[in-house]
Amino acid sequence: MMIKVPQPYLLFLGDVAEARYAKTAFGLRDWAPQLCIGELALPTATVTTGLPRLKPAQAFARGARSVVIGIANRGGVLAPEWIPALVECLEAGLDLVSGMHTRLAQDAEIRVTAQRYGRALIDIRTPPPGIPIGSGEKRSGKRLLTVGTDCSLGKKYTALALTRAFKRKGVDADFRATGQTGILISGSGIPIDAVVADFIAGAAEILSPAAPASHWDVVEGQGSLFHPSYSGVSLGLMHGTQPDVIVLCHEVGRERILGLEDYATPSLAEAIDLHLRLARRTNANARCAGISLNTSGLSDADAQAALASQREWLRLPVADPIRGGPEFERLVEACLA
Amino acid sequence: MMIKVPQPYLLFLGDVAEARYAKTAFGLRDWAPQLCIGELALPTATVTTGLPRLKPAQAFARGARSVVIGIANRGGVLAPEWIPALVECLEAGLDLVSGMHTRLAQDAEIRVTAQRYGRALIDIRTPPPGIPIGSGEKRSGKRLLTVGTDCSLGKKYTALALTRAFKRKGVDADFRATGQTGILISGSGIPIDAVVADFIAGAAEILSPAAPASHWDVVEGQGSLFHPSYSGVSLGLMHGTQPDVIVLCHEVGRERILGLEDYATPSLAEAIDLHLRLARRTNANARCAGISLNTSGLSDADAQAALASQREWLRLPVADPIRGGPEFERLVEACLA
Repeated sequence: MMIKVPQPYLLFLGDVAEARYAKTAFGLRDWAPQLCIGELALPTATVTTGLPRLKPAQAFARGARSVVIGIANRGGVLAPEWIPALVECLEAGLDLVSGMHTRLAQDAEIRVTAQRYGRALIDIRTPPPGIPIGSGEKRSGKRLLTVGTDCSLGKKYTALALTRAFKRKGVDADFRATGQTGILISGSGIPIDAVVADFIAGAAEILSPAAPASHWDVVEGQGSLFHPSYSGVSLGLMHGTQPDVIVLCHEVGRERILGLEDYATPSLAEAIDLHLRLARRTNANARCAGISLNTSGLSDADAQAALASQREWLRLPVADPIRGGPEFERLVEACLA
Repeated sequence: MMIKVPQPYLLFLGDVAEARYAKTAFGLRDWAPQLCIGELALPTATVTTGLPRLKPAQAFARGARSVVIGIANRGGVLAPEWIPALVECLEAGLDLVSGMHTRLAQDAEIRVTAQRYGRALIDIRTPPPGIPIGSGEKRSGKRLLTVGTDCSLGKKYTALALTRAFKRKGVDADFRATGQTGILISGSGIPIDAVVADFIAGAAEILSPAAPASHWDVVEGQGSLFHPSYSGVSLGLMHGTQPDVIVLCHEVGRERILGLEDYATPSLAEAIDLHLRLARRTNANARCAGISLNTSGLSDADAQAALASQREWLRLPVADPIRGGPEFERLVEACLA
């Protein structure tokens, strides 16, 4: 009941002429370079990721197992000019992966070709079928959820960095993706904000299933309890995840909710308190291990000062996972404590 | 962007042989008798609502404008035996309304007949298209939301009773339906738990749009913040509704969440506190006007004692809208205060 994406990838750029339309391709190259074998572009494309330009058969021979549509166009649909190249990919042995609004199977030639060659058409914006209503039942194993004072400030990066750090310590851990980029990076997951409302908690439950007692699922948060548009997604995800540990993510200087100037972001203390009060409904032992503070807008010295000041104020580990360092190690230790 | 259902109704019973499969028909007869012109059943049906048995043309002549499929069968699909009678309804001028899982238009004969005669096929389980992401913007007019310590304990009935009481006092008020039965009763609404997660708050916003300053929308709550399966729906609905007033619904003796024995229902004081803390995120002036206490399991004397005891404890109006009386009037006054 999770989306599965065969890796590694060939990145399809189509006829893209502006880098901002190729966000998915650039994101994957930056976040998961080890998963990107090369790029495939039409002769009219003027943008490149800098990866090797490969024909579909070459990419397959070098190990690629899926071609990812790494571009968005205005309508969110497959452009007719792309079809021959994508058909060649299917013929060469690659599954086809898309985060566009319209489903891949709506294109007849793509659908028929995939059927003929036994290839999968994977729409990572479409939740898998069969998601149940949440049961509220306690599951074995440990779970960490990254949460935020707002959207788009580092919940995914923090979850990825913590998973990596856990593994480096020999801890059995899985990153659990809840959004498109996370699903492409980890190769599986559920796009939680595309699930029907009644099933949010149920989707969170199957995303982090029962596991051995020492295993950690590190779940990518979505939205924010404090975001008037997305708080329902955030609460359903938290209640279904039943996290033992939350890590609160914030960006220095983010004083208003993104795009909603009327709404202030909460203080970190208030955000911790509200998250724990709600999290304890489904896990009485939920605790906050610390803060992931996005300091990317600051100089090194200012960042260290900001981190130290919050640390003193909250008496919790406060680290920027992008800067790493000993304080990030302390945050990792606090999560596992 | 709301579902609209032409009223009044002819209730279709199909070939039903057990009353429990005709819950929707009985519910409508009990909740909204003034909307039910009659019933239509196949000769094999052995269940009756007691309403006049009418042919579709007779029902139309008496004012009916929709035929409501008032029964459920195992698969949640249209039975082939029902089709001729439903086609006759469409021919007679009635729109066709269903709360089944499969959509009406999936049946070719129904689809073609509806097209030919210009009738609407209304799936009240399917959200209307075009629901936006919530904007968080403040809207004019007043809003009341019924909330609960659990599911299925009186949120819909309370909202209906309050709307009726508001109107009796000359207050301009609309009941806003968020579930199937509510939509059939009021003739419009959005099935909020069937909306895609990202759009819950947006759906709540368009359900209670900007209105004159003295107008009240009385919004039917769904789920419960304390229900591990449905809390996301409840929070999104509350943040999108931006209620000025909440009325907390509870059932005497409901000590565990329905179907989830591991979860206790909260105390009324705790429930009021958490709801207001979260509601104030989108409406700083949100307040709790009082408690709607479902005492249907108690004798008259025990009910009065239970209401009085909670009233003293909480120092708020506490009433059972089914029993009415002066304390319900006090709850109504407190809502409008």
